[in-house]
Amino acid sequence: MGAPVSRTSVRRLPELQVDDPAVLHGILDAGTVAQVAIVHDGQPYAIPVAYGRSGSSVLFHGSTGSRLFRTLAGGAPCCFTVTLLDGLVLARSAFETSMHYRSVMALGRCTVVEDKVPALRTISEHILPGRWAEVRPPSRKELAATLVLALPLTEVSVKVSAGPPSTSPEDAGYDVWTGVVPFRVERGEPIECEEES
Amino acid sequence: MGAPVSRTSVRRLPELQVDDPAVLHGILDAGTVAQVAIVHDGQPYAIPVAYGRSGSSVLFHGSTGSRLFRTLAGGAPCCFTVTLLDGLVLARSAFETSMHYRSVMALGRCTVVEDKVPALRTISEHILPGRWAEVRPPSRKELAATLVLALPLTEVSVKVSAGPPSTSPEDAGYDVWTGVVPFRVERGEPIECEEES
Repeated sequence: MGAPVSRTSVRRLPELQVDDPAVLHGILDAGTVAQVAIVHDGQPYAIPVAYGRSGSSVLFHGSTGSRLFRTLAGGAPCCFTVTLLDGLVLARSAFETSMHYRSVMALGRCTVVEDKVPALRTISEHILPGRWAEVRPPSRKELAATLVLALPLTEVSVKVSAGPPSTSPEDAGYDVWTGVVPFRVERGEPIECEEES
Repeated sequence: MGAPVSRTSVRRLPELQVDDPAVLHGILDAGTVAQVAIVHDGQPYAIPVAYGRSGSSVLFHGSTGSRLFRTLAGGAPCCFTVTLLDGLVLARSAFETSMHYRSVMALGRCTVVEDKVPALRTISEHILPGRWAEVRPPSRKELAATLVLALPLTEVSVKVSAGPPSTSPEDAGYDVWTGVVPFRVERGEPIECEEES
């Protein structure tokens, strides 16, 4: 295995790599769900998790009943990624057709957060600011069933694709529309529901 | 390692598991980007990929210059996931606050697709139907730089969370709004761009 820096140096399209911590934090703060990759019995898994950011760590939680979360809690290597899709980039060639995106990949090993309530509040505030103060806080039993993990953002790569479509001399004769179709995640009108016991 | 079925049996919230192939295909057809988890030198990675579906396989592509894609092409075990976030589920307790989502997780080993053009067209049609017929098709050199992979959907788990917020007797006294905030990915008005050579 190479030195840490080599694992997160961007080899493909290195011109898209960004080193600004403000960009890293902005992507994490704008995302809702991360994917955490973990190996169990030689098989990789990617699991979606809600998360929050506290300074230069990300926080996420899962059930103590989950074997993948227990593996993470044991300090197994993991990969935490957030990918924000910003649009389709429509070039004149199939090859240069691509996407606008902002992505974060953090490698490392998680630590178990013992002081769970502030960490869970950070995750809740990330998803819907203000909600934590209104809801019933977790009971002792609920906390006992919850693993809260922290991953320090030390070995990180950030990529931002935001440029125009690329063209090459071979595209001459293909007079097609080129540009970007932007994507946006909209939060719709809240829908009141009957609760279920 | 257990029998294949045990790796994709849903242990957490098994009531959300769905066995209907139409639901599986519907989720894959509605998504834009998948996450592929792969192990390299003992470290798991999750990489975002555009993809398409051909019958009961998913197809995706990458650069021959990518060590992770070369590892996938060599038949290493991988995990292909698509996660569609449909909304926030706001319960009266922090513990029962959750999300509506539809997710697919497929485990297996990829095969290299030799007949690349039809597979790339399938991926292109998945992302923007009709575009393939308008753009310059890939050149021989571009095809040589592209790895196209197929993963059969044989070992798959599908989960759909779409229910109302849960409540428990402990929530009495917390008179807060409960329901769902729907998420929707909107494609905005196309923005014409100058191309870049």
